[in-house]
Amino acid sequence: MSKREAIERLLNPGSIAIVGVSKDFTSISGKPMKNLIRHQFEGDIYPVNPKYEEIEGFTCFPSLLDVPGKIDVALIAVSSKRMMQILSECEQKQVRSVILFGSGFAETGEDGERLQAEVLEKAKKAGITILGPNCIGLLNVRTSIPLGFSTSFETEEGFLSGNVGFASQSGALGFSLFGLAQEENIGFSHVINTGNQMDIHTLDCIDYMLEDDGTDVVAGYLEGIPDGEMLIRLAKRAKALKKPLIMLKAGRSEIGRKAAMSHTASLTGSDETFQAIAKQYGLVVANDVDDMIDLMKVFSRGKQTNGNNVVTISNSGAAGIAMADYSEPLGLELVRLPNETQAKVEEIIPSYGSALNPIDITAQALKEQHILTDTLEVLINEDEVNVIVVQTTFGGELGQNICEKIAEIDKTTEKPIVVTITGTTEITGEGRAILEKASVPVYKTSYKTMFAVKHLADFSRFCLKEEKDPFELPAIEERDDPTGIWTEVRVKKELFSLGIRIPQGTLIKDREHLQKVKANVPYPVVCKGISKDVLHKTDAGSVKVNIKNAVELEDAYESIASSLRAYNPDADIDGILAEEMLQDESVEMFIGVKEDPQFGPLIVCGLGGIFVEVLQDISIRHAPIDAEEASDMLKELKGYPLLEGIRGGSRRDIPALAETLARISQYASTHNGHIQEMDINPLWVFEEGQDVAALDGIIVWKNKKDTVVN
Amino acid sequence: MSKREAIERLLNPGSIAIVGVSKDFTSISGKPMKNLIRHQFEGDIYPVNPKYEEIEGFTCFPSLLDVPGKIDVALIAVSSKRMMQILSECEQKQVRSVILFGSGFAETGEDGERLQAEVLEKAKKAGITILGPNCIGLLNVRTSIPLGFSTSFETEEGFLSGNVGFASQSGALGFSLFGLAQEENIGFSHVINTGNQMDIHTLDCIDYMLEDDGTDVVAGYLEGIPDGEMLIRLAKRAKALKKPLIMLKAGRSEIGRKAAMSHTASLTGSDETFQAIAKQYGLVVANDVDDMIDLMKVFSRGKQTNGNNVVTISNSGAAGIAMADYSEPLGLELVRLPNETQAKVEEIIPSYGSALNPIDITAQALKEQHILTDTLEVLINEDEVNVIVVQTTFGGELGQNICEKIAEIDKTTEKPIVVTITGTTEITGEGRAILEKASVPVYKTSYKTMFAVKHLADFSRFCLKEEKDPFELPAIEERDDPTGIWTEVRVKKELFSLGIRIPQGTLIKDREHLQKVKANVPYPVVCKGISKDVLHKTDAGSVKVNIKNAVELEDAYESIASSLRAYNPDADIDGILAEEMLQDESVEMFIGVKEDPQFGPLIVCGLGGIFVEVLQDISIRHAPIDAEEASDMLKELKGYPLLEGIRGGSRRDIPALAETLARISQYASTHNGHIQEMDINPLWVFEEGQDVAALDGIIVWKNKKDTVVN
Repeated sequence: MSKREAIERLLNPGSIAIVGVSKDFTSISGKPMKNLIRHQFEGDIYPVNPKYEEIEGFTCFPSLLDVPGKIDVALIAVSSKRMMQILSECEQKQVRSVILFGSGFAETGEDGERLQAEVLEKAKKAGITILGPNCIGLLNVRTSIPLGFSTSFETEEGFLSGNVGFASQSGALGFSLFGLAQEENIGFSHVINTGNQMDIHTLDCIDYMLEDDGTDVVAGYLEGIPDGEMLIRLAKRAKALKKPLIMLKAGRSEIGRKAAMSHTASLTGSDETFQAIAKQYGLVVANDVDDMIDLMKVFSRGKQTNGNNVVTISNSGAAGIAMADYSEPLGLELVRLPNETQAKVEEIIPSYGSALNPIDITAQALKEQHILTDTLEVLINEDEVNVIVVQTTFGGELGQNICEKIAEIDKTTEKPIVVTITGTTEITGEGRAILEKASVPVYKTSYKTMFAVKHLADFSRFCLKEEKDPFELPAIEERDDPTGIWTEVRVKKELFSLGIRIPQGTLIKDREHLQKVKANVPYPVVCKGISKDVLHKTDAGSVKVNIKNAVELEDAYESIASSLRAYNPDADIDGILAEEMLQDESVEMFIGVKEDPQFGPLIVCGLGGIFVEVLQDISIRHAPIDAEEASDMLKELKGYPLLEGIRGGSRRDIPALAETLARISQYASTHNGHIQEMDINPLWVFEEGQDVAALDGIIVWKNKKDTVVN
Repeated sequence: MSKREAIERLLNPGSIAIVGVSKDFTSISGKPMKNLIRHQFEGDIYPVNPKYEEIEGFTCFPSLLDVPGKIDVALIAVSSKRMMQILSECEQKQVRSVILFGSGFAETGEDGERLQAEVLEKAKKAGITILGPNCIGLLNVRTSIPLGFSTSFETEEGFLSGNVGFASQSGALGFSLFGLAQEENIGFSHVINTGNQMDIHTLDCIDYMLEDDGTDVVAGYLEGIPDGEMLIRLAKRAKALKKPLIMLKAGRSEIGRKAAMSHTASLTGSDETFQAIAKQYGLVVANDVDDMIDLMKVFSRGKQTNGNNVVTISNSGAAGIAMADYSEPLGLELVRLPNETQAKVEEIIPSYGSALNPIDITAQALKEQHILTDTLEVLINEDEVNVIVVQTTFGGELGQNICEKIAEIDKTTEKPIVVTITGTTEITGEGRAILEKASVPVYKTSYKTMFAVKHLADFSRFCLKEEKDPFELPAIEERDDPTGIWTEVRVKKELFSLGIRIPQGTLIKDREHLQKVKANVPYPVVCKGISKDVLHKTDAGSVKVNIKNAVELEDAYESIASSLRAYNPDADIDGILAEEMLQDESVEMFIGVKEDPQFGPLIVCGLGGIFVEVLQDISIRHAPIDAEEASDMLKELKGYPLLEGIRGGSRRDIPALAETLARISQYASTHNGHIQEMDINPLWVFEEGQDVAALDGIIVWKNKKDTVVN
């Protein structure tokens, strides 16, 4: 049975057993039963506990085996110590889906880990799917079936179903977020808490929800990434389906990471890497619970933007200023309206208002609602405008009428309309609810509104981005199990074979060879002693620069050879590399590759010197990337202006640099699983049209059979 | 009458006239009357409008002059065109306080500006104080008197009074923020909207509120700073009184600034400068309405912290991780608890919880409330802990009991307790309200909580910082009206007189002088041609470096002299400066002074090269500063590690650099109003104990009578 099928079954049981049920409905083992009753579950409920004969009119059975009917899902609320036995009973009773609430598993240390592994093994053999342990349960919002003990299940108001699916590793966070979102009339399809995610993990649930027809927005709370490649696959699928995947990733700080490990036994990776992956693959990243709700709201409307040109309409000048202030750092553009559109707006609003974006329709709109709605009608027909933001403080009946009208207009256009209504629930709550129920995104404050618009615009733009195949570059033949540490000469040979420029040079093997080549060396040259036993050339005195002729070359040869012998008498010397001395060193970069335990090969680049050493100014992507993505990567660097030619410097060959980055990323991807790390440093970037050149490099292969390969 | 007295009278009228009142209580000119009736104003109400004889049982008078009694405050809701006439009537009737609602003044352009000036002049002569125009009014929350037409005045629930005062340039923003804050049970003393602030401006209101006994927290919304020096004075006063001054400053973006100018005719200054001033003088800066409410809440409790050591308690591991994640970037420290305290906590919580900070008291605390409260009792007695953060999802009756207990414990300790209750209003609202009414700060989500704690800790630390007098440095004698542009030689002389090191050197006037000094020049030297007609020395070929002896000096002299003549035959040459050639140039800084139109003299510093040119890495303060503040200023620089000695470089003489900054700031402050700009660039910073040296500089005096002074 696939995970998707397993989740489908967990969400839609016809009969439910509750093992270890308590009559005390305020206790964790009592609440799940109470919740089924409260929300009028229509299937069969089988309480299981030898202590009782009946609970609230339901027959209570001594064990699972005594239950007369078929059991679709068993909720298990017994101590972890009894799990193996209960699992045997599940197997005998052919229960295929289990939710484990209890703790005492991997989150508690080694013994718990061992138990968790045993339980999983047994379950797999028996074909049983497990949600949990250490979880609160799940909620199929469409059918109103809560399986678990969240406080949010205790509402008397019922659940609002809709198009948002949410999978959360944490139960407390997951369901309290769900409750808060419901308060703002955000409707959900399913909410699933995975806890220790022993079997079904959060990404499995996200996968299910992405493929679910009625779910248009998928959100996930994760403390670690159980499977980085799967996350990337899901992100790509989300893009193809145009379903935003909103992620809240915890464990970003050192202490947070440690706490995460003791919490639900997760390994949380580096935040920089996660953020880079998220940007590259279009994940929508929330920083906290509030963000997540704000994002669910704007995306659940289902509209996309055609750009980031925003127009704002408000009845308060201050709100207009605020929205302008927030737009700039969020990368939104308060578009300048064409003259004829501005003229149309001027005709509608009072003379002391402003038809210049941000549009101020003044407090007069409090009296005459057509001012706002007529302005809206003009703007939905203006092609230059991608998103319309409306800010009002309108309350009472007037406010409600206006909100109804906005909701009507919103239905007539594909253009997103996002609203701020700043005011108390007493005065403005009804109006807000009208918009919320019509799925028009509405926020209480302008910052939240602009934040949501920014992410809507970003995701829409990302969805429009064409997927390119980085392997349009000539294919790279995979090396057959390369080993050891490759240093300068070997790495340069490799880079050359990839089409990356390296300085011209000759490895002079011995004196005889020297005599043969000395006339043809591309003077001036740099000479470097090459030995796998001497990695730090400068320390060994084995570098000589600016060798201008054959005489100097012979001197350099002898001098380096004797320095090497003095430095390490046993060193195995491959020869002396005489290499053309390149001139223009004004922009020095490095390109690195490293294998991330969660996501596989990453490519990193940055400028040398203080940029990397003082400012940690680097840019990261998951390999492979194409040249366009590589250009974006470069633009993120704080030092990018140096490549563009600031300070009187000339513009550098950015296209060649991007191409080189793409090529190296392709190499990293081709050798996925083999490269431990790789570093090209320095890489000189010459003037426009003059290419780049790799001046040194190292590749550390995972297989270290031999130590150093020159 | 002082502004304070004027505001006092506006807030506490015994009788109110409403000029231009409307019977339509949904209109702007009808609402103020309706609001007085709604909130049962106990003084006299005099509607004034020739159209009516009575309104709701109140006699309506044709003009102000017909009103029988004394009028304390007149609310004016007539067209701006009639203002001069109404003002005459006010004068005759001896009305001393006026609130002007209408627009049509400075915000509309030149004509409006002229009218506004006329009105102000007339009012001043007549001893009339004006609030507005273009404003919504004010609210004395203590006495429940709303004077104006805000939607927030239309509540049927009454107002909650308390210790927060709020002055807002924008009415819509001000009163909607007020309404939202009241929803969270934040009590206010006064809320005043200043609009165009023709007479009483926002800073006047802040001044009033700071001195008001029952107001402990003062908040302001500003679109521009009407008086920078007053803001600084208020900030200092706020610190002395330990009353936080929370500021939301709009008009940060270019478009926002433009909109602000059309909105309430403000000049908004550079955001960088405002942020620097705010940091230096301890203003608490909010980014948006939500921030402002969150900050009002935490400060209105009135507790301060003794440090930024935080302990968090939660019943959900995820919340603990989240709080740890947020702490790090906010500069809070999740403190490691001493072993004995940890042991005490361990005894209280379930074995599968965690007594390690973040403390996880587990969902078991849902059942046994003593787990949380006992843990709290332990922690309030732990000196290492400065702030306790509690996160719960507890709802219902249990939640309420726990909240009551937290409120009780909070009363027994000076230590701030800040709470997050994540959950719906239906389930957790009652508990939250219990805490809110006890003034215990409570938020719905962890980020908001940690954000509030950060600002509480920052302000508390700021209040503890001792005020030092930067003029402990030897006094600087103010130059008597200096003029022109001072260049290298003159500036260096000035710096030397301030005790700042400059290279030793001699200005060689002519050949005769050359012969006299050539034996005593501190070789090796740099030679520079000095002429007020040649500002770009390198362009003129008038710099020679590394002059090692008298012969070379003579050559250099002749060569520079002829270069200068070739470059500009008419140049007036002062001589040739022969200056010791300092060696260690690894860290180059600049120090600048500029006069800000709002705040006066600012001091700016940064590292040279790419730090300033590519990264715009600068640090700003208002002058004067002491050496401690100067050190803080340096630490803000991204390139600060270079001063500390990264990349194998040695540590630089940071104390000497800080001292120099302080000294220059003192110079800037002494010559406040005279310096247009000043720049010391480069300033070399030598190794520890080796001082700094100013290598070049310029001072541009405001009085430019002469052009250049060498």
